Amino acid sequence: MDIIALKASATDKDIRHVVKRLESMGFKANISKGTERTVIGVIGDTSKITEEEGNAFEAMPCVEKVLRIIQPFKLASRNFKPEATVIKVGKHAIGGKKIQVIAGPCAVENREILLKTAKEVKAAGAAFIRGGAFKPRTSPYAFQGLGEEGLAHLAYVREKTGMPVVTEIMDPRDIDVILKYTDIIQIGARNMQNFRLLQEVGSYDKPVLLKRGLSATIKELLMAAEYIMSRGNHKVILCERGIRTFETETRNTLDLSAVPVLKGLSHLPVVVDPSHGVGKWRLVAPMAKAAVAAGADGLIIEVHVRPDEALSDGEQSLKPEKFKALMTELKAVAKAVGREI
Amino acid sequence: MDIIALKASATDKDIRHVVKRLESMGFKANISKGTERTVIGVIGDTSKITEEEGNAFEAMPCVEKVLRIIQPFKLASRNFKPEATVIKVGKHAIGGKKIQVIAGPCAVENREILLKTAKEVKAAGAAFIRGGAFKPRTSPYAFQGLGEEGLAHLAYVREKTGMPVVTEIMDPRDIDVILKYTDIIQIGARNMQNFRLLQEVGSYDKPVLLKRGLSATIKELLMAAEYIMSRGNHKVILCERGIRTFETETRNTLDLSAVPVLKGLSHLPVVVDPSHGVGKWRLVAPMAKAAVAAGADGLIIEVHVRPDEALSDGEQSLKPEKFKALMTELKAVAKAVGREI
Amino acid sequence: MDIIALKASATDKDIRHVVKRLESMGFKANISKGTERTVIGVIGDTSKITEEEGNAFEAMPCVEKVLRIIQPFKLASRNFKPEATVIKVGKHAIGGKKIQVIAGPCAVENREILLKTAKEVKAAGAAFIRGGAFKPRTSPYAFQGLGEEGLAHLAYVREKTGMPVVTEIMDPRDIDVILKYTDIIQIGARNMQNFRLLQEVGSYDKPVLLKRGLSATIKELLMAAEYIMSRGNHKVILCERGIRTFETETRNTLDLSAVPVLKGLSHLPVVVDPSHGVGKWRLVAPMAKAAVAAGADGLIIEVHVRPDEALSDGEQSLKPEKFKALMTELKAVAKAVGREI
Amino acid sequence: MDIIALKASATDKDIRHVVKRLESMGFKANISKGTERTVIGVIGDTSKITEEEGNAFEAMPCVEKVLRIIQPFKLASRNFKPEATVIKVGKHAIGGKKIQVIAGPCAVENREILLKTAKEVKAAGAAFIRGGAFKPRTSPYAFQGLGEEGLAHLAYVREKTGMPVVTEIMDPRDIDVILKYTDIIQIGARNMQNFRLLQEVGSYDKPVLLKRGLSATIKELLMAAEYIMSRGNHKVILCERGIRTFETETRNTLDLSAVPVLKGLSHLPVVVDPSHGVGKWRLVAPMAKAAVAAGADGLIIEVHVRPDEALSDGEQSLKPEKFKALMTELKAVAKAVGREI
Repeated sequence: MDIIALKASATDKDIRHVVKRLESMGFKANISKGTERTVIGVIGDTSKITEEEGNAFEAMPCVEKVLRIIQPFKLASRNFKPEATVIKVGKHAIGGKKIQVIAGPCAVENREILLKTAKEVKAAGAAFIRGGAFKPRTSPYAFQGLGEEGLAHLAYVREKTGMPVVTEIMDPRDIDVILKYTDIIQIGARNMQNFRLLQEVGSYDKPVLLKRGLSATIKELLMAAEYIMSRGNHKVILCERGIRTFETETRNTLDLSAVPVLKGLSHLPVVVDPSHGVGKWRLVAPMAKAAVAAGADGLIIEVHVRPDEALSDGEQSLKPEKFKALMTELKAVAKAVGREI
Repeated sequence: MDIIALKASATDKDIRHVVKRLESMGFKANISKGTERTVIGVIGDTSKITEEEGNAFEAMPCVEKVLRIIQPFKLASRNFKPEATVIKVGKHAIGGKKIQVIAGPCAVENREILLKTAKEVKAAGAAFIRGGAFKPRTSPYAFQGLGEEGLAHLAYVREKTGMPVVTEIMDPRDIDVILKYTDIIQIGARNMQNFRLLQEVGSYDKPVLLKRGLSATIKELLMAAEYIMSRGNHKVILCERGIRTFETETRNTLDLSAVPVLKGLSHLPVVVDPSHGVGKWRLVAPMAKAAVAAGADGLIIEVHVRPDEALSDGEQSLKPEKFKALMTELKAVAKAVGREI
Repeated sequence: MDIIALKASATDKDIRHVVKRLESMGFKANISKGTERTVIGVIGDTSKITEEEGNAFEAMPCVEKVLRIIQPFKLASRNFKPEATVIKVGKHAIGGKKIQVIAGPCAVENREILLKTAKEVKAAGAAFIRGGAFKPRTSPYAFQGLGEEGLAHLAYVREKTGMPVVTEIMDPRDIDVILKYTDIIQIGARNMQNFRLLQEVGSYDKPVLLKRGLSATIKELLMAAEYIMSRGNHKVILCERGIRTFETETRNTLDLSAVPVLKGLSHLPVVVDPSHGVGKWRLVAPMAKAAVAAGADGLIIEVHVRPDEALSDGEQSLKPEKFKALMTELKAVAKAVGREI
Repeated sequence: MDIIALKASATDKDIRHVVKRLESMGFKANISKGTERTVIGVIGDTSKITEEEGNAFEAMPCVEKVLRIIQPFKLASRNFKPEATVIKVGKHAIGGKKIQVIAGPCAVENREILLKTAKEVKAAGAAFIRGGAFKPRTSPYAFQGLGEEGLAHLAYVREKTGMPVVTEIMDPRDIDVILKYTDIIQIGARNMQNFRLLQEVGSYDKPVLLKRGLSATIKELLMAAEYIMSRGNHKVILCERGIRTFETETRNTLDLSAVPVLKGLSHLPVVVDPSHGVGKWRLVAPMAKAAVAAGADGLIIEVHVRPDEALSDGEQSLKPEKFKALMTELKAVAKAVGREI
């Protein structure tokens, strides 16, 4: 039930107009006249009322406020599916007791470096290898990724190490080549509301790692998940990766409270990307530990064998030995909160 | 010239390492040893150094700070092209003395309503008709636009009224159909960093109206314009449409100071969308007048014949009579700042 | 009337508990049972329910959401007093048809410079002289103002020019000395929620210029005005001076939409400080014109005879000749929107 | 050393003007002419150059950019004092291996409830009792605290339990009564830049818990600490309590990355207030654990025996049994990161 509070000045004719509009949309109206104002309760499945339709009611001169009680997302909500979703990827599962670590370079640059990195992070306990072949870069003059050649390198590394691959899609026209090489499709922060891309990946039976947009609210992240799920693909992994605020000491502000909020509102697994969240490698370890303590189901961590030569995001990458030390600490924190890594 | 300030603890070996790296990238280094620290000036065209490459220098343990002096955009910058760009669309020009008004409904819903609206806004002084056929909506269950049918309605209205058409592209796969029907292609706020879409529209000789993203900085907006221009299409119109802040009384915070900042940094025309910027029709008129006073080259205003029945964004649409009254006021403000409407 | 929506799982006992609590606070409850959930309307003067009391209801396990309809401010609201407040200061009035301009240096540095500046801005059309004697500075090592000596300089300039004085109070212990020398007391942005200071200035019959805090919502600004007014002083002038956002090209983001929003919610006059709002003198003129077009009742503009030697905020000060040129342009814009300067 | 980059158009006369100005301030200039522009290195203790003086240089027409390398805070910086500061309060120490927990109600309401709460939190492992006697409330009509009566209740509870007391000061005129009753003086978020209050508490030998302002950057928090320290009181405890962002699911966005950033920049202890940071009791436990994992030296947690009857902030208070359960979990997390509680 949603609620429409009318202005004190609303007339009976105004009330009838609102009620008629609601009925034409398939709802019933529960009119409650107070001493100061009339309040109309909207009866029916109001989750189907879009934000814009709600706004249209608010545009009526007789309306004071429209109050939405029902969440606008459905398939993604915990009300709809109370038990936690566990997504299987090969022999691994995301969303269960075990916290999964996805590690690797920001961009795939070279097959040998990728393989070396993969072996190192696997030995330290990471289950998944990540690396970008198509890179969203703020400058058109920056390295845009190796494209399909990068995907082939990822597939080669998967074959050699057995690690499933996570990589980003930027363009719906790339869906076939991405599906051919990857185990989890990543939707980057800048594409969280690229609705056509969401619909595209929603049409296949392949897990999607959906990153929160830089200025996306938690609800908008869940609505983006709903876009994917509404097309049939329910294998969505949510990812907190930092939001844009006024603070400049960190690249973004990692919003770890989003983890318990998302776990409360949704049944989907939640992972955290501390590398992009803070943008400085010195801060990655404390924030990775904090993410696990806050209840994250997984971590995405940038690791590069030579960060100061990386073509992308070197400043936030850990060297393999630092990553290894971090994994040891993470195991202890995971145990302390009843999980394992 | 950019500047790399080393830490007080940096050794001669560190300095040589940084210099070698710079030289391998084609730059010369100007070493300046102070009493407290060494500062390295980078000589050459440092606008080619990407943000990520700059960050990689900052990742070096001996580096305190990397200081960028050169703007990362080039084709879009006023340094590169000092005189203002004027974009011709049919018999109209955007960026000249005359302030152009683009008006129409948020979404195209129906041919007759669109034609009626177009006639009304044309009579009031608007030169361009706008309307969305492909609509980016936060909910997958909301009206997604009429698609090509909507584009055909726009073309019909253009034929009947002579008004050039502005409409949004959401997917690079729609480029052919969009090019067939529209005079100015709009890139919406949520797609400002959809880099593939930017590259796509950059490949055609068709004006692009580029909206600032909800959390995009002014520089990021100019970098997005640079993406389009780097492909050859220099007809980019920048659009301020409100940024996301903590304030909730307005849908977004319309950042009018972006207008003079953009006019200072770039030669491209700048238009303002007060309807999306504030999200409430009562605020559209004062903010439209303020935009003109701040130096905008144009306005995009939502007008709908029956806002409380609109399928999209009714709350922020003006009725034709209010739009007409606003145009009269805008003429006076434009004249006061030496422009005309 | 406020509204408490209960969870679908709420029992009759829960409902009785909520109702009993409301009754103990002096309200009546209007219970409306829907098919999905029960909604309780709160009848009585709910503007007296504090945010914290509302939150306490939301803390009850049976409550889904508490929905406030009534605004939390009363004396400051336009519902309470529909006609605009006009504040008389000497022979000038703020809030009427004439837009008032307050000009002067950020900090009072020297009597002669202040007098020279005052004469210049008066000749250009400013009615009020401003200058800080007590300066809130982010660094303890920065110039903190001349204190009472600065106030005496202001009083001297008032005597010589007849211009009323606006200056800032930082400490309730300074109230006597401030009252002695000033015509309008300024509360700076950083003290907008210094509630003791608000109460102090609320106890005297002296106009108060209340600046919006860097991260204050429009409602919080009005609640701060309410603090002053609740002590008896209804002469409050609201001031928009920029809010903190992620954008770094400007010192703050001047939220001009706050002007029409405040004029709608409140009867108090609203002035704009473009100098602090943008922090760069090149942007002051366009934003001052935009503020007038948006409906501001006044402007506060920093003017300094030698900005590059100013001890405070030189970067955002106009030289007298630029101020004079701006005043000419402002007159035209004011006329275009039916006002005068 | 700071750096002043001149515009390409700067003349020799411009350079001499800048150099002269620097020399008049006691600095030496290191001029470095590149092919494109001249860069001036400022030699001397540039930490004494205030932000405003830096801005004044930027106001000069020949200057492109002023680049500050030195941090503006000194006494608070880790460069100045590399070893961590440990603050003794009675038999307890803040900043050492042991993580300290400060617990209690938001506002002191009643002596018996306070004593009961204190006994419960002490039994669970909290060392300090907190409670507000002077409360900063957004509404003038809300409960403003019991004042000195509340302080007396706190002192009574200290006597009965041996727990040191933390309470907030709002007005410099209250310093004597606060000093009489409290062990740690709290400066609330809204007063972080109430510079007179900072100077006042800086004049006594009493630990100060300094909360980060809602929109304060990490550097501004350190500058506020510098204000206190510059008066002689070096016993400052920094507190992260959430910043204001666009997200509305939580009351504020708890910026846990501020913990490692502050520990890197400063030697002062850092505590976290998850209760105000998130504003919902369900989120307090995960964020408290995350804070410890991120390296916090202490926690401030709101505990109330009957949260839904609390006069202030009930929604975010834990009941004693939930607090007790949380303390058990926190012990495990603390151990996992090499600390103890």
